[in-house]
Parts: sequence; structure tokens; C-alpha cells
Amino acid sequence: MVLCRVPRWSVGLWASPGWWRTTCTLRALVRPKRGPGCPGGASGPLACSMFSKVSSCTPEVMLTQERYPVQRLPFSVVSEEDLAAFERLVPGRVVTDPEELEVSNVDWLRTARGCSKVLLRPRTSEEVSRILRYCHERNLAVNPQGGNTGLVGGSVPVFDEIILSTALMNQVTSFNSVSGILTCQAGCVLEGLSRYVQERDFVMPLDLGAKGSCHIGGNVATNAGGLRFLRYGSLHGTVLGLEVVLADGTVLDCLTSLRKDNTGYDLKQLFIGSEGTLGVITAVSILCPPRPKAVNVAFLDLDTGSDLEMSMLARLARCFLESNLASCPGFAEVLQTFSTCRGMLGEILSAFEFMDAECMQLVQQHLHLASPVQESAFYLLVETSGSSTGHDAEKLGCFLEQVLGSGLVTDGTVATDESKAQALWALRERITEALSRDGYVYKYDVSLPVERLYDLVTDLRARLGSQARRVVGYGHLGDGNLHLNVTVDAFSAALLDTLEPYVYAWTAGQRGSVSAEHGLGFRKRDALRYSKPPPAVQLMQQLKALLDPKGILNPYKLLPTQA
Amino acid sequence: MVLCRVPRWSVGLWASPGWWRTTCTLRALVRPKRGPGCPGGASGPLACSMFSKVSSCTPEVMLTQERYPVQRLPFSVVSEEDLAAFERLVPGRVVTDPEELEVSNVDWLRTARGCSKVLLRPRTSEEVSRILRYCHERNLAVNPQGGNTGLVGGSVPVFDEIILSTALMNQVTSFNSVSGILTCQAGCVLEGLSRYVQERDFVMPLDLGAKGSCHIGGNVATNAGGLRFLRYGSLHGTVLGLEVVLADGTVLDCLTSLRKDNTGYDLKQLFIGSEGTLGVITAVSILCPPRPKAVNVAFLDLDTGSDLEMSMLARLARCFLESNLASCPGFAEVLQTFSTCRGMLGEILSAFEFMDAECMQLVQQHLHLASPVQESAFYLLVETSGSSTGHDAEKLGCFLEQVLGSGLVTDGTVATDESKAQALWALRERITEALSRDGYVYKYDVSLPVERLYDLVTDLRARLGSQARRVVGYGHLGDGNLHLNVTVDAFSAALLDTLEPYVYAWTAGQRGSVSAEHGLGFRKRDALRYSKPPPAVQLMQQLKALLDPKGILNPYKLLPTQA
Repeated sequence: MVLCRVPRWSVGLWASPGWWRTTCTLRALVRPKRGPGCPGGASGPLACSMFSKVSSCTPEVMLTQERYPVQRLPFSVVSEEDLAAFERLVPGRVVTDPEELEVSNVDWLRTARGCSKVLLRPRTSEEVSRILRYCHERNLAVNPQGGNTGLVGGSVPVFDEIILSTALMNQVTSFNSVSGILTCQAGCVLEGLSRYVQERDFVMPLDLGAKGSCHIGGNVATNAGGLRFLRYGSLHGTVLGLEVVLADGTVLDCLTSLRKDNTGYDLKQLFIGSEGTLGVITAVSILCPPRPKAVNVAFLDLDTGSDLEMSMLARLARCFLESNLASCPGFAEVLQTFSTCRGMLGEILSAFEFMDAECMQLVQQHLHLASPVQESAFYLLVETSGSSTGHDAEKLGCFLEQVLGSGLVTDGTVATDESKAQALWALRERITEALSRDGYVYKYDVSLPVERLYDLVTDLRARLGSQARRVVGYGHLGDGNLHLNVTVDAFSAALLDTLEPYVYAWTAGQRGSVSAEHGLGFRKRDALRYSKPPPAVQLMQQLKALLDPKGILNPYKLLPTQA
Repeated sequence: MVLCRVPRWSVGLWASPGWWRTTCTLRALVRPKRGPGCPGGASGPLACSMFSKVSSCTPEVMLTQERYPVQRLPFSVVSEEDLAAFERLVPGRVVTDPEELEVSNVDWLRTARGCSKVLLRPRTSEEVSRILRYCHERNLAVNPQGGNTGLVGGSVPVFDEIILSTALMNQVTSFNSVSGILTCQAGCVLEGLSRYVQERDFVMPLDLGAKGSCHIGGNVATNAGGLRFLRYGSLHGTVLGLEVVLADGTVLDCLTSLRKDNTGYDLKQLFIGSEGTLGVITAVSILCPPRPKAVNVAFLDLDTGSDLEMSMLARLARCFLESNLASCPGFAEVLQTFSTCRGMLGEILSAFEFMDAECMQLVQQHLHLASPVQESAFYLLVETSGSSTGHDAEKLGCFLEQVLGSGLVTDGTVATDESKAQALWALRERITEALSRDGYVYKYDVSLPVERLYDLVTDLRARLGSQARRVVGYGHLGDGNLHLNVTVDAFSAALLDTLEPYVYAWTAGQRGSVSAEHGLGFRKRDALRYSKPPPAVQLMQQLKALLDPKGILNPYKLLPTQA
């Protein structure tokens, strides 16, 4: 019996946007099966065993090496001697049980599967250093793994890489309540950190759907964007320091807790978004903004005009959200609403999310969520966070009057209590889940100039016609970030050829990014050249060669197969 | 007759904080003098000529190579053939006139002087590329130069490096009024860009005293901090793209205009803060926040209590500043006031600056500025920028009532009109100028944990006793950034020995940064090891070797003499 953990989406109450997500699920898996391409032979403790699910509703995940054309690089194969050495380095924390390994070999989208035979659970940077020094000497490949919530196959092994888990490196080192600077180990779960700093009247500068599982080290390694990006910006700005263990075991201590530090090259930046290919992040220092205090949950009804339910405010004194869902007749109106919104809500605007009609249909059909507004081509979710209840309510009210009065928005609802706010966020947050229930999903996560953001969806819908079940677009409009998803009954290589490189070339034509926030991982690595010119790709390869000359860190990821 | 330009501090009216600064000055220089250590011989057009001033009040600037123990590296010497080649590459824009060169050979603090014999003024990235390709082949050293407003000797040659000026690369390429993303050439002056985006209802995310001279390329190359850092954060977060020409002439195009882009390593980050040693930044894409609209200028009088002068508001509808100067009895109160301020002003807080009593005496004595508050140990300047006049006034009023009522602040004044706001900002902004009139200045710019920020000043004052004229501390408290300055009658090597490495070691003892925002340049490069451990310094050297194997870019800067 094998347990397969899927990411634990946050179920925290009212702690932050996106609290209403799917709960932690444990799925039973049986039926061992041999992985044909795995080195190590078929017998003994190191034999590569694969597992598939009993449940007929969840199809078996193909081995990555079978689904994709990829060749194993000439790394060493883990031996009994290696296992004994690891046992000396991290006693009692060497996992070789195939059932336990299963959850770390398969990514949560269930489209990538490695066949690693050992997982190590260090507790300290020194242990990580010793492990990497050993692997470097032995030429053993390593797959650093946090919460395993990545969407591009970057967080699981491709072949038999050793999985280096940060799960036990989960201690908060320090928190400064004047500066709001948190220092912690890389394996701290984001949701736990959120709770920790909120108790001290601060918030984490990032929040994302997978917060219940994802590790802060993984967030930094993948330069996670998420729901607070519009307000607090990139991790390149909010991460103040990192401790990183390099491929040869060298500990690079750049773990300063300073807002400003212009002493030499800002080395930590190299590792933010490097997806574990340049070093293993073991500790993070990050700037937490003060927790917004204001509560405004206003209600807007198109028939009766704006009506601020100020009586609700006292009761909600501990929350800081406004959630406003509005419908827009066209994408031009979406853009105009965004400009108006930013002008009128200014510094309190914290999210501006959009979703199209297909998204609404998906969450209605598969998750039975109810739409609180009339049918429309586009829906918007606007959130504000501020320091004054009354001020924020007033600003939001003026904005809503303006956009409804001018006809930019045709209908709207504003959460008047916690559960309604949760329900509004769920409509946006659970699209990913609804998509996964619609069939096989081709996922794209692109950055485009905001004016062209939706053109790619329209264009692709026309191009695919009846080949696709659905072509849907949603995302973080304020960040110019489109999540484009195509659903079909089952994976089809022919459709993939229709989609790629078309989507990438279209994006490149707008000087967009073929991966806005998901990274490249294993699946998107060959798309890199659509967003970066040859000299940039070459420099990336030189950096990889400099920092990891044997290429043992997260191989087959991020950098293209051929330059 | 030689003209020496000092940086043009902004004199723009009411455009941003810090508008009231010294005006542009042109100083006459004569008396040619030979630079003894300059290669190239004493005769002919390439002879190295030094100049000193007529004015007795401004002492001659010693050659860097004479004041400091530094050896010229074996770069080639610019020949007549090189000059002819440059003339072909940038026709009519090859400057060899010694008088014209003077202003680019001397830094504005007048403590560093090179003896470059040629300055090139390219207009395009392609021209920069051709120049660097040529210099790389010929092994000629290059000093990239923007507005030459640096404070650590990083912006001028140490010996005879070719000066590569970005002054003619001053075109705005594009501005997106929906996203607020500006793309421009590296030589655009910050003040001009500020004006440009303000006319379009946005602001630049950075502002600093030298805005009238400094170039955006230089700002990025030095990772400038400045006055808006507290609100908009680091350039590592706000710079979205860079075009950089590498040492061998390769053009690295990372000039995307996207808020999110996770395709491969974020190469542009390498060049932010690299002080021209890894590549020459030729174009910048940067995210501009919406221009705050709100006006609140409130007046607070300790005797009569808080009184918000709301009648002023309509008249000032186009400005967005609140300036509040308050006095605090001790540093503990300063810290408590900061915590209170951040809690109560929240998202509208845009500056929290502090200065000690010595600073106030300096600006009174040398600049004849009047203090609007009673004498105190510390003074605070608080600025807010927001989107609503009334809301911001109310928040500020509540805050002031709180801190005055609780005794944290003993006196205060709030600007009621433009000129008073200017006068308040001038007290903080013109400290640097007042210092330079007090004698020779030993300047330190450190980051420390906020709790210990002022201890270094107190400690050093006790240590130096009568050896120093003044030991003063001021800076960006909200950023944990202390500007520590020691003034004396004239430079003394003995005093320098008392100061260094003491100040650096003290800072290192707190895990602080020995250069918060000024960078290392030439003068602070050997202090690097106090803030970065050996593996980090070694990796920096490896990066330098990778990107500039011949070391021709801004040599003698940033990296220590010996690792």
C-alpha cells in the first residue's frame, strides 16, 4: 500500500486570500511495476519500482523517460556503499522504501515521474553540505525537493536522481518585530510562516494556492509569484538574504538580514529562480510587510446602486480583505477598469485578477460553485488591503460607483461577510482544480503586454476549433500574467504539435515570457529560447558550468537540451 | 581655462522630495600640472595633464595613484592609432581635450582623480559594442561613466582608463501608460525621466539627491537606494529588463518589459549593483508606480495640540507630499516612533528619515537653515504619499496625536505650504553639503539592525574624542541605513587608521553591511570582506573572470586588491 500525497492547499480560516481551497487528501496506491529505464537492476533494495493507482479515475503516471525524449546523463548509480555513507551523514533519515519514495517521484500534476531510489532528509545546512560534497565526489545527481508543488516537472527526478528533501529543515531562526525581517530554514511551509508572522502583525510578501505544502526554499528557488505580487512585488526585491549550499558542498552564506547591502555582486539573486540547478537554498531571510489592518467588505447591487454596509465592519475587525467580483462585457473594458482601479484605489489595491466565461463554466460544472453575478464575457476579482477600515471602504465605494456608472462593469457583488469573500476567492482560486477535472490539460503561463493579454486566447480558440474541449484564459491581470489552458479528453501528441511552438512563437512575437511564474523545470526547458536570445542562453550555461561543473544539481531542468 | 562640473542637484519645483538642493555650479580651473604616474609620456596630445583650481578654497585633488597604494595593471596604453580607430567608431565624439577631460577624471567629492586621456560618447548600444570589442582586442581598460555622482571613487578612472560616457544615450524608447513600464537608454538623467513619467501620472520608483545629474544606467549599475526605497523597494525588484554590453562587445538583450519572467536565470540581476565591472548597461526597463494624488499638509504645534490645516488642501492639489519634522529625546523613542508610524500610516508612509543634533547644527552653521523645532537629540522627517487627500490627512493627524500624546515626540511641525515642505526636506537633504563645508569628511554608509543603528555613532564619538571635529549620524531609518560622517580640519592618515577597520569590524560584528547604498567603488573595495565571507568573495571573482576575462571593465573597483 503506497500513500500518494497531493499538495495540501491551505484550509486556514480567513488568514489570507485563497483560504478556501481543496483539503489535504491521501490516496491509496498499489500495484508495483518495474520502471524499464531505471538503472540499478531489477532486484535488491535498489530495484526501481513504479506504482500506479487502484482508482480507475486517476490514470497511471508514465515515467518521464518514457513520455519524453530524454537520455540519462552518465552520473553514477547509487550503490549500497553510498546508502551506507548517507546513513552515516544523516542517520535514520535515509528513505529507500519504494512506497515512501512514490510521493516524491511523481509531481502533483501527475505528468512527470522519476524513479529515484533514495531520499535524504537533512536537518541542517551542514548536513546538506556533507551530502553534496559526497555526491559531487561520487558524481551522483541530486534533485532538491521542497513541497513538490511545481507545475513544470522541476521538483521531481527525471531518472534516478537522489531526492534531497528540505522537509526537516523547518525552523524559524529569527524575526525582528521592528524591521519585519524573518529568517528561517528553507523547508518551512509557507502557510506556517504566514501564521507565524501574522501573529506578530506582519504578513508574508507572497501567497499562493499551494501554501499549505510549498516550502519557502522552493518558493525562492522558483521565484514564485502568486497572489500578492501586485502589491509587494517580486522575491528579487523582498528576499534579503540566502544561505545556499553549492554543488561541491561549499556553504555560501549570504544570509544577511538587511534591507540595503551594496557590498559586491548580489550573489543571492543568482539563486532566486534558478530552480535548484545552481545550488540548494538552505535558509532564507525575507522582508515581511506590516499586516494590513483595515476591514471593508462592501456590497454593490447594480439595481440599487452602491451601498456600503458599514455595519459589518466592527464584526470583521480582524480581517483585511475586500473582495469584489465584477463582470465586464469585453477585454477592452477589463483594461479600462484596471486603469481606473489603479488610479482610484492606489496604494490599497492588492489584487486584480481576471477570468473568462469558460473559467466560470468550469468551476460551476466541476466544482458546483455558484456565480454571484450575471453571465458575462469576463469576470474580475479586486482585492484591497489597507490600514484604515473607513478609508478603504470609501475608496472602494467611489471606484465601484465610477465603473458601474460609466458602464465599464455591468454587474458586481462585494463580499459582505467572511464566507462570501471566501466564496468569491474560490471562484478564481479553484480554476486549476476545475481544469484538472475537465480532462488532460495543456498548461501555459505567459507574460504579455497587458493590451495583448487576451488576444492569445481568442487566437488559439479559433486555431484549435473542435480539437480542444476548452481554451480558457485567466490570471493576474495587474502583473500582465495570463494562465492559458487547453483541455482535451486525453493527451494527444498531434495537438501538442499544434500548440507548440505556436504558443511560444506567438508570445515571443510580443516580446513576452513563455513562463511568467511557473519556471521552466523539465517540461518547458526547450522553450527558453523563445524568451531569451542566444547570448543570454549561453551565459546561463556558462554560469551553470561555473557553479556546478559536473552538472549534478537538478539535471535535465531549466537549461535547454541543446543550446 | 578648464571647467569643472559638479553634479547638478535638482532645482525642479515641487516635483518630488529633495527638490531644494544646491544649484548647478561651474568652477574655473587653471594651472596645468603633470601627472607623474600616467603612462603615455609628457609630450604630444596624449600627455597626461592635471589641473588644479585657482580658488584657494578648493584644494587641488591628488591623483588617486598618489594618494592610495595602487599599481597600474598591464593594460595597453591608448595610442594615436587607437584614437583614429575610435574616431571611426564614434565620429566627432572622441574627446581628448585635457580641459574637457578634467571634469570626468575627478569625482564630485574631489577625493579621487584619474588621468584618462580620452573620453568616448557613443549614442547607441551598437557603438558601445564596437568600442568594447575594440578595447577588448587591444587590452585597453575602460571606465564606464554616467553622471559621475558616485561617492566611492567608482565613477572616475584610477589611472588612464578610457572613459566611456553614456551622456549621449539619453532617449526614452517607450512608455506604457497602462502598465507604467518605462524603457529608455542608460544615459537618461533621472530628473528628466521623473518629469517625463510624472507628466503621464506615474513616478520613478527611485529618487535621490543627485537626480539632476545622475544617469539611470549609473543608478542601476550602483543599485542606488535613495529617498523612495522605503516605499518602492530595491532596483532588484523594480528594474524589469536591461540591455548590457559585455566586455568583449557582446550585446546581452535582457530588455524585456514584463513584470514576471521566469525563463532561466535572471541575468539582469548580475549587473544591478555591479558598478560597471561586469558589463556596460546601455538600456533599462523599469516599473513606475502610479503617481500619488493625495495632498495633506498638516500643522502640529506642541502647545496647542494637533490642528489639521485642511483649508490648505485645495490649493495644493497637484502635490503629493506630507513633510513632518519632529524631535525625539532619545534613540529608543526614535525606534518606537518608527514602529508606531508604520503601524498607523501603513501603506501611505513613504519616508522615515532621521538626523541627530550635530546634523542640525551643521546645516544651521554652514547653510544658515533655520530649525523649525526646539533643540533635541534627534529629528525625524516623515513623508506620506497616498491617493486621497482627506484620508491621508486624517491618518497623519491620528499618528501625530498619538506620538505627541504619548511623549515619544516632544515637538513637531508639519508643512503647511510648498515652501515649508521644501525647507523641511532641505534640512535633511543638505546635510551632505553642510558636511563638505565643515572640513575633510570621512564618510561611511552602513546598514545595521535598526536597534543598533545609532550605537555606532555614540561609540565612535567616545573613541575619537577631540581627534574629530564632529561625528554625525543620519539616514534612512526605515531602511536600517546609517550615514556616519566624521569631519576634521584636514585629511589625516592616523585618523584613518583609527577609523578603519574599526568601523568595518564594528559593523561586521552586527552582521551589517559596510556599504548600504554607496557601493564599494575604488575606495571601499578592500572593506568587502567585512560584509561577505571568503566563498562569496571568491565567487564574485569567478564571475568577474567569466564575464570579463581580461579585466578591462572598470578595473581597481569593487573587488578587493587581494582575495
